[in-house]
This record gives sequence, structure tokens and C-alpha cells, in this order.
Amino acid sequence: MNKYDFKQMAKELVAKMTFEEKISQMCHESKAIPRLGIPEYNWWGEALHGVARMGRASVFPAAIGMAASFNDELLQTVGDVISDEGRANYNQYKKFVKTDVYQGITFWSPNINIFRDPRWGRGHETYGEDPYLTGRMGCAYVKGLQGDGKYRKADATLKHYAVHSGPESERVEFDSAVSDKDLYETYLWAFKYCIDNAKPSAVMGAYNMFRGEPCCASKLLLQDILRDEFGFDGYVVSDCGAIDYIHRSQKYTATPAESAAIAVNNGCQLNCGRVYSESLVEAIEMDLITEETVTKACELLFEARFRLGMFADDCEYDKIPFDVVECKKHRDINLEMARESIVLLKNNGILPLDNNKKVAVIGPNADSVDVLLGNYNGIPSIYYTALRGIQEYCDPLYAKGSHLYDEKRSNIQNGCYSNNTTLQEALVAADNADVVIMCMGLDRSLEGEGGDAYNIDASGDKKVLDLPEVQIKLYEGIKKMGKPIIFVNMSGSCVNLKDQKENCDAVIQCFYPGAMGGLALADVLFGKVSPSGRLPLTFYESCEDLPEFNDYSMENRTYKFYKGTPVFEFGFGLTYSNVEENWIDENTVEIINKGDFDTKYTILKFEYIPHKNLCDFKKIFIKKGEKIKVTF
Amino acid sequence: MNKYDFKQMAKELVAKMTFEEKISQMCHESKAIPRLGIPEYNWWGEALHGVARMGRASVFPAAIGMAASFNDELLQTVGDVISDEGRANYNQYKKFVKTDVYQGITFWSPNINIFRDPRWGRGHETYGEDPYLTGRMGCAYVKGLQGDGKYRKADATLKHYAVHSGPESERVEFDSAVSDKDLYETYLWAFKYCIDNAKPSAVMGAYNMFRGEPCCASKLLLQDILRDEFGFDGYVVSDCGAIDYIHRSQKYTATPAESAAIAVNNGCQLNCGRVYSESLVEAIEMDLITEETVTKACELLFEARFRLGMFADDCEYDKIPFDVVECKKHRDINLEMARESIVLLKNNGILPLDNNKKVAVIGPNADSVDVLLGNYNGIPSIYYTALRGIQEYCDPLYAKGSHLYDEKRSNIQNGCYSNNTTLQEALVAADNADVVIMCMGLDRSLEGEGGDAYNIDASGDKKVLDLPEVQIKLYEGIKKMGKPIIFVNMSGSCVNLKDQKENCDAVIQCFYPGAMGGLALADVLFGKVSPSGRLPLTFYESCEDLPEFNDYSMENRTYKFYKGTPVFEFGFGLTYSNVEENWIDENTVEIINKGDFDTKYTILKFEYIPHKNLCDFKKIFIKKGEKIKVTF
Repeated sequence: MNKYDFKQMAKELVAKMTFEEKISQMCHESKAIPRLGIPEYNWWGEALHGVARMGRASVFPAAIGMAASFNDELLQTVGDVISDEGRANYNQYKKFVKTDVYQGITFWSPNINIFRDPRWGRGHETYGEDPYLTGRMGCAYVKGLQGDGKYRKADATLKHYAVHSGPESERVEFDSAVSDKDLYETYLWAFKYCIDNAKPSAVMGAYNMFRGEPCCASKLLLQDILRDEFGFDGYVVSDCGAIDYIHRSQKYTATPAESAAIAVNNGCQLNCGRVYSESLVEAIEMDLITEETVTKACELLFEARFRLGMFADDCEYDKIPFDVVECKKHRDINLEMARESIVLLKNNGILPLDNNKKVAVIGPNADSVDVLLGNYNGIPSIYYTALRGIQEYCDPLYAKGSHLYDEKRSNIQNGCYSNNTTLQEALVAADNADVVIMCMGLDRSLEGEGGDAYNIDASGDKKVLDLPEVQIKLYEGIKKMGKPIIFVNMSGSCVNLKDQKENCDAVIQCFYPGAMGGLALADVLFGKVSPSGRLPLTFYESCEDLPEFNDYSMENRTYKFYKGTPVFEFGFGLTYSNVEENWIDENTVEIINKGDFDTKYTILKFEYIPHKNLCDFKKIFIKKGEKIKVTF
Repeated sequence: MNKYDFKQMAKELVAKMTFEEKISQMCHESKAIPRLGIPEYNWWGEALHGVARMGRASVFPAAIGMAASFNDELLQTVGDVISDEGRANYNQYKKFVKTDVYQGITFWSPNINIFRDPRWGRGHETYGEDPYLTGRMGCAYVKGLQGDGKYRKADATLKHYAVHSGPESERVEFDSAVSDKDLYETYLWAFKYCIDNAKPSAVMGAYNMFRGEPCCASKLLLQDILRDEFGFDGYVVSDCGAIDYIHRSQKYTATPAESAAIAVNNGCQLNCGRVYSESLVEAIEMDLITEETVTKACELLFEARFRLGMFADDCEYDKIPFDVVECKKHRDINLEMARESIVLLKNNGILPLDNNKKVAVIGPNADSVDVLLGNYNGIPSIYYTALRGIQEYCDPLYAKGSHLYDEKRSNIQNGCYSNNTTLQEALVAADNADVVIMCMGLDRSLEGEGGDAYNIDASGDKKVLDLPEVQIKLYEGIKKMGKPIIFVNMSGSCVNLKDQKENCDAVIQCFYPGAMGGLALADVLFGKVSPSGRLPLTFYESCEDLPEFNDYSMENRTYKFYKGTPVFEFGFGLTYSNVEENWIDENTVEIINKGDFDTKYTILKFEYIPHKNLCDFKKIFIKKGEKIKVTF
């Protein structure tokens, strides 16, 4: 037998298993079968922007920030780095005989859902609001993660299939029915693009229902569209607990056995949870499922494991050493991505900063490690907060100025209540400086996944687009001082920056910028690099201007269909230079750098069908004075 | 009138006040009297190891660590730096017309209570268990803080007077009666020494009772001993809320008016709280107090304010600029103090570290900022965790390995529960290293003040001397790997290090080492400086070996009276060199550095009366090969 015929090898191995053994392999905590040389394996891995939840790792900018780079080549490199680190971990942890959760090489990333509404708490896990950009970035990430060796370096998983983008509080019960046009043009587009172009190993079913069916057991989504129409040939994994929810919350079935049967029958092979292993025996006894169906599901999973080289002795990735984790090369790539993810939204000429000026760094996100990391993150051992990055260039004053959102905690000075001394600290710092860099925004405690450990005070999603009151109070206080303000918004989603656009000297959107984020920000602030990011989502002024959060129609949403005037539009982003685009014909553009800075620059190609629609993009590096012709 | 006759100026100013105006000046939030040119002033300031709770500041090692330096000259310099930063703040904040809490120049530091029992949560605020050391260090700190100008740079306050050292849970109601011998030899000794040698502006009364009287209203403590016997001529301030507790908790009086009257009558001029201003009118109406007594109290407070130059136009400290806060000079002094506060307890020759060795840094305190800061702290903008310090020398592996104390939180990987992956991370890091540096211990969440915001899970005091279970599990796991271990214990008090003494290759006690602590630790680990700290307290194995926590008798406590064998004794501390002491006579010693390192070295002079008793010490710098004669 050809040792690389993974399908055949899987078929032969599964043929040796009993029914109980087969179903023991179809949950994320798949059991050991010692007589067949199969060790315990935990399928659950996370790697949205670095190997997550498994300790030390290179933590890259949140996906939304990497999307802002509009640099899919660099993102592919990032994916390659991440699966190197995943493999390095796996090579270590498999020494413990069984791999535990997060220690494997099957990653439930990328999240290619469309960030259709700025309130969604998980929007920063995605590549933004545009299907084409999402497709291109998702595709690059999958390629990077999976590698192109004779074995697969790691499994990438497209999630959450499909039509899934909040509200988090309703994510299980909600039926996100949409028109066929929105379904194909918006919600499925990137899935199809990635399947066509990157051969992802897996797809994860969403929690919610779609057109009356649970997504993880939907004949329409999993069989008719994913397999038959898109030709997907990998495995489908349920979101965690989703199979349980089919009977428990969605009441679509009456028993776990029915849920398990309908999910496997419709094409969900792997259960994050335990319903399959606990209930498929009952399901077959009740004739809800055939052994042949179970066998085929199990074969798909083992095909993937063979393809990953888990049972091979010649897998090229077994030699990846532990010391690649967070190595210098990876940190350099991370810094590069962090720089490119920063979007300059306004600059009256104050930037790049003259570092003879006395700088005050103010705000709850200035010296925050959390804000660097977003969610689903690893732990970096080398990291730069904004403050630390700026300290690489000058000796700034610093004041936190407020808590991120809690008025009461703002006024606690290390355990002791005081009235408004925290604000006064900031005013004093500003008063003693020539220029104020305000580092404000959100973090995972204000936007994240429903039920996760951070969002004790919030519920995952945002209710409004404004900064928290306590930050507005700080901002207004600083504004009154009359000093130049460089406003750095760190958030994973749109925040209302209308006032800042009008009143600040410069405005920067830097998302959740990863372990090297503060240094990247400083490199931009002080002109070591010109910013080159572009917004991968529309910055609105208010939710009032948008449809209801749980309305999945694309009407009046995103740059394509929004009828109002955004504060900053999709694709917007300045450089320090003056780059002109002269379109010669539909596919040819001449780029001229008339400014004083070398810079990276992304050309966006839009079509009008009739709405504005991104249909291609290309990122280039152009020196000052240079002229480059780019053909699409 | 002589403009520096502060007593006379106070007398004349107070003479112009109504009774109500006088009592409005006797609470920590003293009111403005515009017609007399008196602004609002908040007396409450904290500065145990840096200006505290007022934002950015140089954060020095916790007092217990500075005591370990046995370098009172350096501590005086530290005090000088701290009041410079306090003045710099005050010069800024007084622009807001009124100074708010923590913005003034009257500091309720140092804490010169005797750390008689290792369970006390606030022990790290003190200079340890020895009255002589406490007196010398307290004296140096007061001198540094208060300066020696024509005006006083800041007020130092000796606290908590007297016989106060836990338990925190009983701190208000407890009557800490002790024998006269223990009272004078142990509990009052440092107070008298500081009053005799450093002229502290203020003394703070303790919460508890002593021989039946509330400390803040005790004729015996405040009048007979402090004023009449010790000749103290400054002002006495109550601990916060203590006047209220006299009737409310201690039931020593029946009403606030009675409490206020008895406290002022017995010599407590300033009330942290509001009882005086709210109740002294009633007290005078009831003939519980005379206006003359109130006038004299108020005069003492204004004498202090005049002495601080608050009403002068020629105060030399008004010009201290804001940019001294955390300036390079202050950071250098901080680094020096942090280095000297580190105590080397064991070294089999592994230290200083060869930095060609691959290092793993493991433990919940390795990358903790909190552990640097102790309690009553400011916020540094430049700080080195142990990990970051070590990164200045090499490229270490890092794993947290466990939560500080919570088994459940140990196993949460960023919001998601996993079994023992956190421990496995540490094992993998150790497995890939040549040597393991474990950074373990406690922080303010495990030892602190009763009722403060950190100690939600603990109650201020410790129950046992052992490390938390989850850290022991981590330690045992790493030990099994068989790699050399350098055990760094970061705590403000004695932790049972018996096993580490036996089984680790090196053991370091580094207390709560301040903003520069991680760099100082790395400087020691890699041999940039030789360690020179000595333990300012006994390291016991277990509380079982000690009297009850609430037993204030010194019987079987501290190096003087403890009958057992400690794990590490008071005064113990190694250097990297081999320093010999040859005592020529009682007051003369020849110090010979026979080792290979230049080092600082503290000579301790003990007497036997008949118990062992520290009676002098001197810190010197001695080069390798050098011989120095030291005379006491």
C-alpha cells in the first residue's frame, strides 16, 4: 500500500475497529485503542492568531488586525509560523503519551464569519465585513497553517458554518435565516473560496439554526451545499456542546441519540462534546443510523490523522524543535504583521512624532497586556505594551487616567477609594507634556464570546459603539487641556470616533495588536515605518443607524449596503507619504509615491455590481519618488 | 516675628479661628478657611516604599526588603528620593486649589511595628523582627523623608503606636497587653530610638487597645510615655476610623463626642476620619473638653504645616519639578536598593549562572507585576518582572506553571478549563532547559491588610508558612525532572523553605523587590553584583513551633527568644565571595575578602544579655583580596 494513500490506510484501520471503538474516535477526546496502536488524542486546538491556550506562544495581532494589513502573503507566513509552534508543542506534549486539550495539531481556526454588525463580541476573531477580503485572508491562513508537505502540518478548520455572527446571548437558539442572495454573496462566499483555493481539512458547524435546522445537523448546509455543491471532502466538527444543544436547547430532537444520529447522518463527523460516544450505541439500536455511516465518518477522521503523519515515522514535522516557539524569527514576523495592522485614520502633520517633544502616555490601554492579546490567545513571554514600546523611543510621562469601563474601580487607588485623583493624575501628566498619546478603547472584558471567563461585566456583545463613559470623561478632561492629542483606539471592532476625527490631531486604530503591538505602534508613531493598514470594516457613528443586531439581512449594512455616512469607511487608511493611484485601465494602475516616506501601500480594486464591491487587492512597497505599475 | 518660628506662627494663626474652624482643621480632610488664606488640605498620604496610591512613582522594594539590605545610609537616600517625588506631586496637585487624598506631603510612614509573628499579613510593611534594626532603618527613613532644610520636606509618621502586629481580623477589638519588659525592649524601642534620633513630625496611634485603653486615646501611651517620657513634640494622628471604633467597636465610650474628647484630651490631635469635626462641638457643650485643649491640638497641626512651608513663599521644595518622578537617578537608586535587598540563602556553586546554559523560568511570580509592588504602592511606568530581568541576560523558556494559590484557576487556560496542562507546560519547559529558575512565593493577595481590596480570597494574615498547595505541586513536579533548581522565593514574610534548603541548588529570598526588582534579581543571578542582603527576620519551618498568633509575649519568638532551630536564622545571608570576620576586640573587626568576587558585606554586631541581641551593624564594600578594619 502507498504509505501516502491516507484514505486507504484509514479505511483499513477503521475496518479493524468494533462499533464501540469507532464511536470512541468521534468525540474531541478520542480514546486510545492500544491494540491498534492508537493513542488518546484531543482534537480541540485553537490558533486564531497564534497557538492559543497552551502557554507560551507567539501572539500575533487579532484576526481583525491581520485583516487590516491587507497582506495575505504575510498572513500565510504567519500561519506557517503558528503551525510550526503548534507542531513544536505537539512534539513535546505527545511525550506524555496522551495529548490533552490544546496540545494537538488540529486547530479550530480561522473564523471566517462575516462581521456584519459592530455589536458582535467575536468580530475581532474574523477578517472583517467583506467576503472577498475574508476569503483571501482565510485562504492564506489555511495554506500557511496546513503547509504543503507530503504530510499536513496542521489541520485548519473553517468556522462557524454558517451564517453566524451573534448575538452571543441567542447564539444557540437563534435561526439566522437569510435570503439566498445574502447567503451565497455574503455568508457562504468565503467558505467556498477557501474550499476552492486552500483545501481546508475541516469545517466547524455553528451553534445556531439555519432555515429550521441546527447548523451541525443541517442537510441543506452540510450535505447539499458543503459536500455536493462546494465539493468539500474533509471532516466536519461540531462547535463545542452544539450536538447537546440540538435536543437540550433547540428541542429539534427529543434525545441525545436522535441528535447524534441526525448530526452524523447529515455529515458532522466529529463531536466537540461527548454525545456521540455516549449515544450512538443507542442510536444504532433504534435504527436511527447505520454502522456504515458511522464507519465512513470515522474513516474521514482517520484519513485526517494519517494525513497529519500521526502514525508515520517519516513525518517531516516531527523534528520541529521546541525552541522555535517565540523565537527571534517569529517575533520579527509578528512585529512586521503588527506594524502592517495599524491603521492611520487622521494626521494633521503631527505624525511621525518629533521625539524631542515631551510625551504623556495616558489611558487604560496604555500599559495593558490584556489589550495586546485579544481573545483565544497564548501567553507571550516577550511583549510590548504601548507604553513600553513608546519607552523605546523616549522617556514619557504616564497616567492610566481611568479604569477601562468601571467608574468605581477608576477611583480606587490600589485598594483605597478616592474621588477623582485618577483623572487628576492624567491631567497633571498632560499639563507637563507637549503632546498627549491617549491609548483608549476596549479589550476582551468588553467584547468577546458569550459565557467566557473575561466577560463578567459585559455579556460578550457591545450595546453601543461609544467608548465607556469613564473613558469619555477622561478624554473630555484631556481635551480641555488644549494639548495636541494623538488618539490611539485599541479595539477589535468599530468604536464611535466622530469626536476624535474632528478634534484630535491624529487618530490611529490599532485593534488588538499582539505581543509586539506596543513596539509596532511606537515604530509607527515615531516614523520608523509608515503605517499601511486599511480598515477591514466600516466605522459607524452609532448603532441607531443600523438594523437590529439580530437582523441577518445585509440591507443597510457594511460598506456595500450602508446608506448613511460612516465616520471612517471600509478600506480607509493613510500612510505618511503621498501615494497617488492612476488607473490606466480596469486592471492596470500606476502607483506614484509623491511624498517623503518609503511606505507599504495596498491597492484596492472595487467593482460596482451595482453596489461597491471589493474584487481584488494587492499590497506593495514603494519608495519615495518611485513609480510602480501594477496589473491585476 | 521670625518667619521660621513655626510654633509662634501657628499660635497666632489659630488664635484667629473660631472653635468650629479649629475643629475643622483636626480631621484628615481639613477644610479651607478662605478668610485666613488656608486652603483645603488632605493629610492622608502613604509612602512606605515610594509615594503610594498617587499614580506613577518610583516603587522601591517593600520595607521588609529594604531592611534586608541592612544599609541605612542607602535607605536615607531612598527616603530623600521619595519625598522629592511627593513634593513634585504636591507642587502639581495643589494647582487644583485643594489637595485630595494621597496628594499631600504628610506621609503615614514608616511602619516600625515589630514583625513578631510570621503570620501577620502586614509584616512586609515593617523592617522585620528586631527592634534595633527597626530603629536604625526607621530613623534613616524618617531623616530621608523629612530632609534637613529650613522647611521640612515632608512629614514622616511613626506607626502604629503601639504594640500592634495582628491578627488583622481582631485588630480593632484586641487588647495587646504585654509585660513592661516586652513593651520597652521590643514594642517601644524603635519608636523611642526614632524620636531621639530623627525628630519625626508625627506618630500614628494603633487601632487596638493596650492595657484597657484604645491606643488612640491612651493616657499611658500618648501622654505618659510618648510625651512625658520620650519627649515627643510633634502631632499624633489616629489610624483611619480608629476614633469611631472607640465607641462603635471597642465600646470604651458611649458616644462619638466622648471618643473625640478622650482622644484629644490624651493627645491625639488629628483624626483620620470625621468624628472630631462632627462631635467636638457637642463634646465642649458637655464639658468633656476645654477650648484650650482643642486650641493646643490645632496649634500643633499648624506648626507642622508652617514647618512644611505650606504658607511660605520661600520654601526650597516648591521648585521640585514633576519630572523628578521616576527619573533615571531615582531608578538607579531603586535598582541599587533592590540588589541589596536580595538574600542568598543557599548556593552549591551554581550561582552566578553561566549564561550559556539554557534557562527555564517557571512559576506564578516569574512574570508578575503585583509581586514587585507589595502593598501601599505607587504605579511604576518602568518595571522589570523577574522574567523581563532575566531576558536582559539570556533568552529563557517561560511557563507560569500554576496560579499563585488557586487550583481551579491554575487549570484555566485563558477562560477555558483544562486538567493539568498548566503544570505540563512547566514540565516541558524544564525538560528543554539546563537549569530551572523557579519564581514562587506570595503576593499581596495572600498577605496584606485586613479588609483591603486584594485579599478577597485570603483574610490578610497567613494561616500557615507553607507555600500554597498548587505551588508545592508544581515544585514537586519540577523536582522530579532532576534539573538543577534555583529557587527564588518572593514573599514579604517567612515561608517554609526547608525542602528547598535541602533539595535545591540555590535558594534566594527576594521579598517584594519593587519596580526594578526583576533586573536586580537578574543582576544577582548572572553575577553582575554579588548578593549582600541578610534576613531581617527568622525563617521558621512551621507555625506549630510558635506561640499562638494573638499571644504578644516575646517568649519563644524571633531570633532572640526562639527555642527551636529555624530553617534560616535572622541575619543570615551569603555573598558570592568568601568573606571572613576576625574580631580583634569587642568593637573592632578585620574583614578579609578571600573569595573571587567584589562584594558588599554587612557586619552584624551581637551582644548577649544573656539572649542574643543585635546591637550594631555596618555595611561595607570590599574588593576581592582586600582586608578592611572596621571599628564600631
